[in-house]
Amino acid sequence: MTLHAFDQALHLEAAGTDQPHTFVGATSPAYWNMVGPFGGFSAAAAVRAVMLHPALLGEPVALTVNFVSAITEGPFTLTATPVRTNRATQHWVIALSQTNANGEAEVALTATAMTALRRDTWQASDMPMPPVAAPAEVPRDVRARAGEGALAWLSRYDMRFMRGAAPQVWDGSGGPTVSQLWVRDAEPRPLDFASLTAMADVFYPRIWLRRATRVPAGTVSMTTYFHASHAQLQAAGTGYLLAQAQAQAFRHGFFDQTAQLWSEAGTLLATSTQLVYYKA
Amino acid sequence: MTLHAFDQALHLEAAGTDQPHTFVGATSPAYWNMVGPFGGFSAAAAVRAVMLHPALLGEPVALTVNFVSAITEGPFTLTATPVRTNRATQHWVIALSQTNANGEAEVALTATAMTALRRDTWQASDMPMPPVAAPAEVPRDVRARAGEGALAWLSRYDMRFMRGAAPQVWDGSGGPTVSQLWVRDAEPRPLDFASLTAMADVFYPRIWLRRATRVPAGTVSMTTYFHASHAQLQAAGTGYLLAQAQAQAFRHGFFDQTAQLWSEAGTLLATSTQLVYYKA
Repeated sequence: MTLHAFDQALHLEAAGTDQPHTFVGATSPAYWNMVGPFGGFSAAAAVRAVMLHPALLGEPVALTVNFVSAITEGPFTLTATPVRTNRATQHWVIALSQTNANGEAEVALTATAMTALRRDTWQASDMPMPPVAAPAEVPRDVRARAGEGALAWLSRYDMRFMRGAAPQVWDGSGGPTVSQLWVRDAEPRPLDFASLTAMADVFYPRIWLRRATRVPAGTVSMTTYFHASHAQLQAAGTGYLLAQAQAQAFRHGFFDQTAQLWSEAGTLLATSTQLVYYKA
Repeated sequence: MTLHAFDQALHLEAAGTDQPHTFVGATSPAYWNMVGPFGGFSAAAAVRAVMLHPALLGEPVALTVNFVSAITEGPFTLTATPVRTNRATQHWVIALSQTNANGEAEVALTATAMTALRRDTWQASDMPMPPVAAPAEVPRDVRARAGEGALAWLSRYDMRFMRGAAPQVWDGSGGPTVSQLWVRDAEPRPLDFASLTAMADVFYPRIWLRRATRVPAGTVSMTTYFHASHAQLQAAGTGYLLAQAQAQAFRHGFFDQTAQLWSEAGTLLATSTQLVYYKA
């Protein structure tokens, strides 16, 4: 059996019993973006480290990842430290470091996470899945599928846009900043917290949609709340997720977006927000 | 001249040159909530520490605060460490600790922040201020004003609800989870990043609105993106902010909300999201 490309890319090794919070991994050409790994991959690596930690309590509930510097091709070290363990919740501080040309460790990503034992409680959704066409009725985005080399990560996903695909013509016209797409791993893989983390970052920069101008842009901080239990992720299986994103404000070189991800059956699995640098 | 209650409460002392990232403060009865300080106060303390740090580059742009354990009455230590300083951005890792009964330092709050030199760029808002009555036309919430002792922090704010005030009757009926209110410091104080941080947390738990049942609830993680520059905060001055919040999902003992804060003149100053524990 061959490991899925996502699991190959996300392979982490525990550093050893004298460094219980440390894991070693490496960037992967399979999830490469323009000038570094796809941000969703790096965020997923942080989640994977937490989930591999022998002291883990519960499941991921909240995650914030800050992309503090470009991650370069090659190995990295992830530390995931449980700084406080309560009865039913646990709080983590995470950092990804790489060794620079001078042999010094430099932080490239910081993160915090909360894990918790999920309980059955009263529940409700105030964010119902919007009515959209079924995945089979929407063609796969061929531009994404053609992603190679500098945008290899795009070809790892099957994306089907109902609204807000990347502009066909970069003429500066621009429009609304809502995107709605069906997304799943191009090579089927059962959904888990790591892959859901990555899929919360599949949205190309909202400013491209708003301005129909391909300005340089990159996520600087991203927060995801996981509403789904492990069992609900298992129920989503290899199905599509409906992913929706919308910008709020563009100013002073940063814009933000809110996002939601539902299972094909309509369960809100995660909500997410991110702040994105843009040069314009 | 007497310091404003907010500044008295938020007074931090640098620990000294041998601990350049450490600041010492204390909780304040003026901003006390049920079982600890008002979360917005603690988040503001994290921002204040960053802004007092001599190595600060720029202004706050993104902040995530995790409330990892109850903060108890008394002194606390805040560490704000600049882990990476780029040309125009700087990334911070923050922790608030208190000494427990055994004399051990315990982490009660973790945070990350990003500061940046703001540039003038193309700008737009996709989240215009909703049409609402002017502050003078909306009565001040007397229940909030009456906040004393266990809810002292409520009386520190002048809150005027257009939609989604706390239920008048706790009869389990429930309704929509949108709140819209005008808010400012009850004793006028010019807006700054610390007070804006606090005001992003003035919303009482959405589950109270949704269920009209006063279930125990508390914020566990909060992320705020600051879209306003220092100059835009100065322009907002001592005016009211329009604060809006809406829940997304309630499940497994946690719900999330998205929030926006506009100046009285209609500038989107900050967007925020938080995850809240509830017992139900």
